[in-house]
Amino acid sequence: MGTESTSPPHEAAADADLHIDFSRGQRLGFPEIIYGEHKSADQLQRIVRQCAEKQHNVLISRCQPEKAALLTGGTYDPLARTWVNECAPPPLLPGKGAVVSAGTSDAPVVGECVNTLAFLGLEALSIQDVGVAAIHRLLSRLDEILACDVVVCVAGFEGALASVLAGQCPQPVIAVPTGVGYGVAKDGYAALHGMLASCANGLMVMNIDNGVGAALAARRILRLLPPRH
Amino acid sequence: MGTESTSPPHEAAADADLHIDFSRGQRLGFPEIIYGEHKSADQLQRIVRQCAEKQHNVLISRCQPEKAALLTGGTYDPLARTWVNECAPPPLLPGKGAVVSAGTSDAPVVGECVNTLAFLGLEALSIQDVGVAAIHRLLSRLDEILACDVVVCVAGFEGALASVLAGQCPQPVIAVPTGVGYGVAKDGYAALHGMLASCANGLMVMNIDNGVGAALAARRILRLLPPRH
Amino acid sequence: MGTESTSPPHEAAADADLHIDFSRGQRLGFPEIIYGEHKSADQLQRIVRQCAEKQHNVLISRCQPEKAALLTGGTYDPLARTWVNECAPPPLLPGKGAVVSAGTSDAPVVGECVNTLAFLGLEALSIQDVGVAAIHRLLSRLDEILACDVVVCVAGFEGALASVLAGQCPQPVIAVPTGVGYGVAKDGYAALHGMLASCANGLMVMNIDNGVGAALAARRILRLLPPRH
Amino acid sequence: MGTESTSPPHEAAADADLHIDFSRGQRLGFPEIIYGEHKSADQLQRIVRQCAEKQHNVLISRCQPEKAALLTGGTYDPLARTWVNECAPPPLLPGKGAVVSAGTSDAPVVGECVNTLAFLGLEALSIQDVGVAAIHRLLSRLDEILACDVVVCVAGFEGALASVLAGQCPQPVIAVPTGVGYGVAKDGYAALHGMLASCANGLMVMNIDNGVGAALAARRILRLLPPRH
Amino acid sequence: MGTESTSPPHEAAADADLHIDFSRGQRLGFPEIIYGEHKSADQLQRIVRQCAEKQHNVLISRCQPEKAALLTGGTYDPLARTWVNECAPPPLLPGKGAVVSAGTSDAPVVGECVNTLAFLGLEALSIQDVGVAAIHRLLSRLDEILACDVVVCVAGFEGALASVLAGQCPQPVIAVPTGVGYGVAKDGYAALHGMLASCANGLMVMNIDNGVGAALAARRILRLLPPRH
Amino acid sequence: MGTESTSPPHEAAADADLHIDFSRGQRLGFPEIIYGEHKSADQLQRIVRQCAEKQHNVLISRCQPEKAALLTGGTYDPLARTWVNECAPPPLLPGKGAVVSAGTSDAPVVGECVNTLAFLGLEALSIQDVGVAAIHRLLSRLDEILACDVVVCVAGFEGALASVLAGQCPQPVIAVPTGVGYGVAKDGYAALHGMLASCANGLMVMNIDNGVGAALAARRILRLLPPRH
Amino acid sequence: MGTESTSPPHEAAADADLHIDFSRGQRLGFPEIIYGEHKSADQLQRIVRQCAEKQHNVLISRCQPEKAALLTGGTYDPLARTWVNECAPPPLLPGKGAVVSAGTSDAPVVGECVNTLAFLGLEALSIQDVGVAAIHRLLSRLDEILACDVVVCVAGFEGALASVLAGQCPQPVIAVPTGVGYGVAKDGYAALHGMLASCANGLMVMNIDNGVGAALAARRILRLLPPRH
Amino acid sequence: MGTESTSPPHEAAADADLHIDFSRGQRLGFPEIIYGEHKSADQLQRIVRQCAEKQHNVLISRCQPEKAALLTGGTYDPLARTWVNECAPPPLLPGKGAVVSAGTSDAPVVGECVNTLAFLGLEALSIQDVGVAAIHRLLSRLDEILACDVVVCVAGFEGALASVLAGQCPQPVIAVPTGVGYGVAKDGYAALHGMLASCANGLMVMNIDNGVGAALAARRILRLLPPRH
Repeated sequence: MGTESTSPPHEAAADADLHIDFSRGQRLGFPEIIYGEHKSADQLQRIVRQCAEKQHNVLISRCQPEKAALLTGGTYDPLARTWVNECAPPPLLPGKGAVVSAGTSDAPVVGECVNTLAFLGLEALSIQDVGVAAIHRLLSRLDEILACDVVVCVAGFEGALASVLAGQCPQPVIAVPTGVGYGVAKDGYAALHGMLASCANGLMVMNIDNGVGAALAARRILRLLPPRH
Repeated sequence: MGTESTSPPHEAAADADLHIDFSRGQRLGFPEIIYGEHKSADQLQRIVRQCAEKQHNVLISRCQPEKAALLTGGTYDPLARTWVNECAPPPLLPGKGAVVSAGTSDAPVVGECVNTLAFLGLEALSIQDVGVAAIHRLLSRLDEILACDVVVCVAGFEGALASVLAGQCPQPVIAVPTGVGYGVAKDGYAALHGMLASCANGLMVMNIDNGVGAALAARRILRLLPPRH
Repeated sequence: MGTESTSPPHEAAADADLHIDFSRGQRLGFPEIIYGEHKSADQLQRIVRQCAEKQHNVLISRCQPEKAALLTGGTYDPLARTWVNECAPPPLLPGKGAVVSAGTSDAPVVGECVNTLAFLGLEALSIQDVGVAAIHRLLSRLDEILACDVVVCVAGFEGALASVLAGQCPQPVIAVPTGVGYGVAKDGYAALHGMLASCANGLMVMNIDNGVGAALAARRILRLLPPRH
Repeated sequence: MGTESTSPPHEAAADADLHIDFSRGQRLGFPEIIYGEHKSADQLQRIVRQCAEKQHNVLISRCQPEKAALLTGGTYDPLARTWVNECAPPPLLPGKGAVVSAGTSDAPVVGECVNTLAFLGLEALSIQDVGVAAIHRLLSRLDEILACDVVVCVAGFEGALASVLAGQCPQPVIAVPTGVGYGVAKDGYAALHGMLASCANGLMVMNIDNGVGAALAARRILRLLPPRH
Repeated sequence: MGTESTSPPHEAAADADLHIDFSRGQRLGFPEIIYGEHKSADQLQRIVRQCAEKQHNVLISRCQPEKAALLTGGTYDPLARTWVNECAPPPLLPGKGAVVSAGTSDAPVVGECVNTLAFLGLEALSIQDVGVAAIHRLLSRLDEILACDVVVCVAGFEGALASVLAGQCPQPVIAVPTGVGYGVAKDGYAALHGMLASCANGLMVMNIDNGVGAALAARRILRLLPPRH
Repeated sequence: MGTESTSPPHEAAADADLHIDFSRGQRLGFPEIIYGEHKSADQLQRIVRQCAEKQHNVLISRCQPEKAALLTGGTYDPLARTWVNECAPPPLLPGKGAVVSAGTSDAPVVGECVNTLAFLGLEALSIQDVGVAAIHRLLSRLDEILACDVVVCVAGFEGALASVLAGQCPQPVIAVPTGVGYGVAKDGYAALHGMLASCANGLMVMNIDNGVGAALAARRILRLLPPRH
Repeated sequence: MGTESTSPPHEAAADADLHIDFSRGQRLGFPEIIYGEHKSADQLQRIVRQCAEKQHNVLISRCQPEKAALLTGGTYDPLARTWVNECAPPPLLPGKGAVVSAGTSDAPVVGECVNTLAFLGLEALSIQDVGVAAIHRLLSRLDEILACDVVVCVAGFEGALASVLAGQCPQPVIAVPTGVGYGVAKDGYAALHGMLASCANGLMVMNIDNGVGAALAARRILRLLPPRH
Repeated sequence: MGTESTSPPHEAAADADLHIDFSRGQRLGFPEIIYGEHKSADQLQRIVRQCAEKQHNVLISRCQPEKAALLTGGTYDPLARTWVNECAPPPLLPGKGAVVSAGTSDAPVVGECVNTLAFLGLEALSIQDVGVAAIHRLLSRLDEILACDVVVCVAGFEGALASVLAGQCPQPVIAVPTGVGYGVAKDGYAALHGMLASCANGLMVMNIDNGVGAALAARRILRLLPPRH
C-alpha cells in the first residue's frame, strides 16, 4: 500500500493484519472464536495455519460455504455455518445446557450454539420447534429442561418463548433472538426487543443470531459449578 | 385570521373547524368517537354542545382531566381518560367480549376499551394482570375466555400474552399494545412489533394504546352474530 | 453435532427439529400453516412427508420456487409463492370474504390471501387495483364489497385505501400492508404505520405482506356466523 | 464569554448573534420569517426591535405564549402560535390558496399556514375537518377547492386525505403532515411517510407541522400567475 | 386460485388485476404513469397492450432491463429505467423546468425526471454535478436557472444543494433526495431529512428517487402559466 | 365501568386488576418484584397491603417519590427509586456480585441493582466511575472484581466499559446500559447496541436501566454455587 | 444500601461514586470536563469540593440552573449552561479557532464551545447566524474564517452550512449538529446525518449539541502548532 | 432525452453530467477524490480520461472490480476497492498518521484510508487487529501510536477501541466506524453511535466506512505542522 510499516518486513508481508489472542484461554478459560463473515478467504487460511502451528483448536463462525471449501483439515457444518478444527479433544467440563428453540427455521442458530458448546467441552440437550403458538409442546418437555444447569432460548418472530421459559425455569436463561421472520420481524429486531423488554425476571439477552455468544455466556456461568470428578 | 371564509359568517365564527360525522351510525352502525387529546377545551365544549343539540350520545377519548373539568353533563373516568354523555341508553347488542390484560399497569387501556364497549352496547368481561411470566394465572381463567365471542388482549412490555392467547383461543383475537414499560419497551413499539410478528396465526393488531379501536373492531365483528332476541 | 440428544435416536436423526402442531385443527378449527421462507428444502420435504403420512392437508407460504421444485405431490402458485397439498377437499364454510387491493403490484399478497382462504374452505371475491388515487374505481365496486361478511384490504405505498374502505364499510376490515413501493415506502413501513394510525375506526392490522394471517383472521371472524346448511 | 470578538464592540454586545436577511424580499420576493421556538425571549425582542427600526414587517412562528407576552406592538394568535407585526399592509397578490385539513385537531397548523398566507398578501380559503373516514365531507366541498389555484392539505394520523385530494385535483397540492395522533402517529412520521409515499401523482411534501413552509411554497408557486390588475 | 370471481370470466382470466385510470387525463390534465418495479413482466405486457388498444401514450418507470426487453414498440432508457411508448406526440405546454443535480451519480434520477417532463410535453434544462462542495460550479450557472419557471433539485448524500438553491431562487423549488451515498446516506434518508428540514423557506420535497413525481409536480405548477400561443 | 364482572363483587371492587404471583418464590426461588412506574398510587397501596397480609417481602422499582410518600411501612431510596418492605430478613445466599459502573451519573441504576441484590439476600461490591476514558481507574480495581462470582457492568454513553471488562474477566458478565448521555446516547440505545454488539465474548445484556433485572439474573446464576454453610 | 463496601468506610460514605481523572492533564494535556446533566446536585457539590482541594480548574457542562445555584465560587453562563471555576488562569496556547453557526438559535452550543475553548486557554472568533439560506452572509465573512487555524461549524435543521464551509476552507473543520428544529429536525438527527454524509471532503463530526467535544477536538488539533513565544 | 440543452452540443453529448472540481487543489490543498460506487463504468471512464488530459492524479474510491477492469492506466487494490492513477508522484508532506484497527475484518477500510493517505503524500503506520477484547494487544503498541501526529481509529461491532485510544492519546483522534458485524452491528450504526457517544473527550467521527474522509481530515490537520525541510 505504499506506506511504511514498523513490523518486521516478513511478518508485515504475511500477517500484519492478524493478532490472534492466544492467551485468552489462560485469561478467560476459553479460546478466541474466529468471526468469519467479514474476513477474506485468504485471511481465514492464514488464521487456520497459525492455529495449526500452535496446536490451537479453532472454531470459525458465520463461515460462508465458498470460504469453508478453501480451508483444510477441519469439519464444516453448512447449516450452522461453523468450521471447526480440533488438534485435541476439548476437556469435558461439568454442567449441561438446554438449547430450546421456537421453530424449525431457527435451526442454524441452534446449530451454531450447540456446536460451540461442544467445542468448549460442554454437554447440550437441544429441544426444537416448541414455540408458544402451541404451548403444550413446550410444557411436555419442561422436566427435561428443568434438569439442565443453564437454558439457552433461541427464537425469531416475536420471541415470546423466552418470556414463558424464564417464567417457568429458575435457572439462568440466555435469550438469542434470530432473524427468522418477515415484515417487522425481518432482521430480528422484534424478537430482540421482545426479549429485552420481557416481563419475565432476569432474562439475559444476546445479539441477534449470536449462537456463539450464548454458548460462551453459558461457559462463563457453568464455571461456577464445582469441577467434575 | 384575516382571510376570507366561504362559510356563512356566523358558522365560521362558531364551528368552521368542526364537521362531526353524524351519519356514521347509519353508515357503519356505530357513532363517531371524539379523539380528545389534541383538541382544545373550546373545541371539545363546542362538540359536546352540538351533540347535545342533536341528542347524540358522545364519547371523548384521551381527554385530559383539566379539559374534562370544563365539560358539563357527562361522566369522566380519570383512569381511562374517557368522558361520556349518553342522551339515551345504548341498544343492548348480542355478543360478549373478553378484555384480557398482561399487567396491572395496563389498566388505563383496559378501561378505555371496556368503557367504549359499554358505550357501544356490548357486554364485556375483563380479566387483568395475567401475563405470561406466571402462565398459570392465564390458564386458570381460560374457560371464561373461551366462553366469549371475541377476545381483546392488552399488553405492554414484550406483549407475549397475545401470542399465547391466540394459540389457545379459536375466536377472533384483537391485540392492543400499550406503552407500559421502559427502555426498549418505552412508547409501546416492542409490544407492537411483537404482536405484529406473532407466531400465533391470525392475530389482529391495533395502534399502541388504542383501546377505543379494539372496541370498535369488536363491534364490527360481533355484527356477524344473529341479533339478540 | 457431537452432543447428547434425549429423543429416541432414529427420530433425532430424522425429525428432531420438527414438532408440527397436528392438534391445531381440534383446538382452533384450522390447521397449522407452514412458514417456508427460512426453512431448508430438506426441512420442507420432511414436513410434507409427515403431513402425507397423517393425511393432513398442508399449505406452505413464502416458498421460494427452487424449494417448491423439490416438493412432490402438491400445487405451486409462483406469484403467491404458496405450495398446497390437499389430501381431502376442505369443508366448505359459511361466509364470504372480499379481498380488495390498491394496485396491480399487490397481486402476490392478494394471491397468498385468496389461496389461504380457499385452503381454509372459505369463498372469496377479489377486487384489485382500486387505490385512492382514482377513487371512482373503488366507489363503483362498493356494493359488491358491502355484500361480503369480512373485508381484507391489501395495499402498499401509503396504504390509504384501508382508511377509505373502513370509513365506508360496517364489516370487520383487516388491513395488510405490502412492501410495494420505494424510498420511504420500501419494506412496507409507510403502509403499516398508515394503517395502524388510520383515522377510520376499528381497522385491524396484520404484519407486512401477511396474506396468510389475514385469511386466518377472517377464518376466526367467520366462525361467528351460524353454520351453513 | 472571555474570548476576542472581531465585530465592533457595541454590536457584539448587542446583536452579534443576529444576521436578519433583510435582502430576502429583493432576492426571493418575500421576507424572512423568524423561527421562534428555540430563540430566547431576549433574542426575539432584539429581532423585533431591528425590524421595527427598518420598518420591516415581521412574523415569528412557533412562538411560545410566555415569549409572546414579552414582545410589544404586534398581534399574537395563541392557537397558531404566530406573532405578527405589520408596519405596512402587505401588497395584495394574485391567486388564492385552499387550506384543507383532515381533523379539528389540525387547527394550529392550519392557523399557522393561513396566517402566513395573509402575511404574504395572499387570499386563503380554509376547509377543516374533512378527513377520509367520512369521505362525503370532502366530496361535498370539492368544487370550492377546485376553484382555488393551489391546495395545501394539512393532516395528522395517517394523512390519507392528501392522496385522495391529489387524486381529485389538478392543481399543485402541498401536503403538511401534523403531529396529531398517538402511538405510531405520534410526532407525525406516519403522516409524513404516508404523504411522501402517496400513490397520487406529484404530491409535494413539507416537514411535519410546517404550516409556514407550505404558505411560502404557495407563494413561490403563485408567482407564476400573471399579476393582479 | 380456486375461488369465485365476480368479473366476467374472460376478463378475469385476462386482466382482473388491472384498472388503468384512463380518465386521469380528463380529470387532472396528465395521464397515469405506470410504476414498473413491483409488476411482473406479464402484467406490464398487458398494460402496454391495453394502452395501445386505446391509443394511450404510456410511460413505465423503474422498469428493470429484463422486463423492458419483453415489451414491444417503445423506447427504453437503461440509465433512467424508463420505457416510453408515444402513440402521438405530447402537446407542447408552456413553461420550462430546470433539473439541477448535485453529482454525476444522480444521473439516473435526473434522467427519470427529464424523460417524464418530455413525456408530459414540457421543456427542460438539465444542469448536473454542481453540488455545494465546490459552490462556484452552481453560482456560475445561476442565471440559467433563474430563467426557468420551476426548479427541480436532485441530490444524494446530505442534499445541501437544495437549501442553497432555494435560498437563491424565487421560483418554486422541488427537491428530490436520491439514494446516492453510503453509511448514513445509504437509501437516501440523510438527503430526505436534510431537504425536509431545510432552513431555506418553502422548499417542497418528494419521496427518495422520485423523479417521476417531481416532473408531475412541475406539471401541476406550470398549469398556472397562461397557455402558450 | 358499567360492564359485568365475573369475579366475586367485593374482590372486583377492590383488587380485580391485581394478581400478584405469590408462588414465584416456590417456582423460581425469588419473589416477584413490583414495577412501579406505570402503576397508580392506589394500585401500589393495594399491592403493599396484600403483601403485608401475606407476610411477603416486597420491592417496588421505579417508584416515583410522590407515590412512595403515600406508602407506609417500608424504606424509600430516592436515588435508586426503590421502595422496600421486609417482613423478615432475606436468607443470606452464597456468592458475591460486583457492580461496576462507568460514571458517577450511573449511580441510580447501580443503586437499583445493589438494593435488589440485598433484597434477594446477596452480597455486593460496588465500584463506580471507572469508565474507559481513563482506563487505569478500572485496572487498579481489577483484582477486587476478579474475586467476585458474577459481574454486573452499568454504563451509559457508548458503554465501552462492558467490552473491556468482559475481555479481562472470566466470570459471567451482565451488562446494563443506562440512559446517561445526550444526542445519540440519549435514552440508552448507543450503550445498548454497543453492549449487544460487543467484540468481547459471551457478554449478556439487559434492557436499558434494568438494574432489577441484572440482580435477578445474578440470582439465577449464583444458584449454581453450592449452598453456604 | 445494605451491602458490604471494600473502600475505607469514611470514603465510601463520602465519595465512593467519584473517581475524577486528575491525571488527565498530564496524560492528554487538558483536564477532565465534568458532564453535569445526569449528576445530582450533591454529586456536583462534592466534585467541586474535590477540585478546589486540589487547586484544579473545573468546567461543568450541561449544568441546569437549579443545580448551578447550589454551587459556590464559580461563574455560571445560563445560555451555555456551563459552570466554571478557575483556581488559576489557563495557560494561553497557540492557535485560534473560528466558531461559525448557522442560526441565532444555535447560540447555546456556540456558547458551550467558546467557553470551553477559553477554559482550555484557546482564542476563539465567533461568527453567528450565517446559514446557507442567505449565503452572502457567510461569503462576506470568509476571509476572517480563513485566517483561523481550525473551524468549528455549529448548525441545526439540515446542517448544510458544514458542507459549504468545508468546501471553501482548507483547515480542519469540526461539525457540531444541534437539536434546533422541529419535525424531522427535532433532536438533531437530520443535521447529524447531513454532516456525516457531507459531500465535502474530510469533515469531522461530533455528537449532537457537543460543543465541549468540539473544543477539545480543536485543542488536540492545535497541539500540532509550534508553541507560542 | 428529448429536451433542450444549453451546453454546447458536443460537450452535452460527451460530459454534460460531469464537472470535476479541478480547482480544489488550489482552494483546499488536495485534489477531488472520485466516489465510484454509484457511477456507471462509462462515467468513470470519461472521468479518468478528463484527468489524464489535464495531467491530474486521480483516486476512485468504492470502485467495484467489474468497473475497475474497464479502466486503463492505473492500479486497483481489490481489498480496499481503490483505483489510483498518478501522473506524477504526490509531494511528500510533513507528519505521520497512525491507522489503528480493531479487527482483521476491518482491513478494507484500513486499506482505503492508507491508500488515500499515500495518494495525498502522507506517511502512515498501520496497526491492525488490536481491539479491546484483548487490551494488551493495544497497550503493547501504544508507544508507536504516541509517536504519530494524528490517529485514525477504524472499528466495527461496538467500536470501543476509539474510546480507549482517545483516553490514552493526546493527539487528534479520528474515528471511522465500519459495517463489520451482524445483528445490531450490521451496517455500522452500533459503532457509529458508540463513537459519537464516546465518553472520551474530543473524539471526531466520520461516516461509516469512510476511510477516504479520515485520510482527508488527517490531511487538513497535518497542514498545521511546519513544512518539511
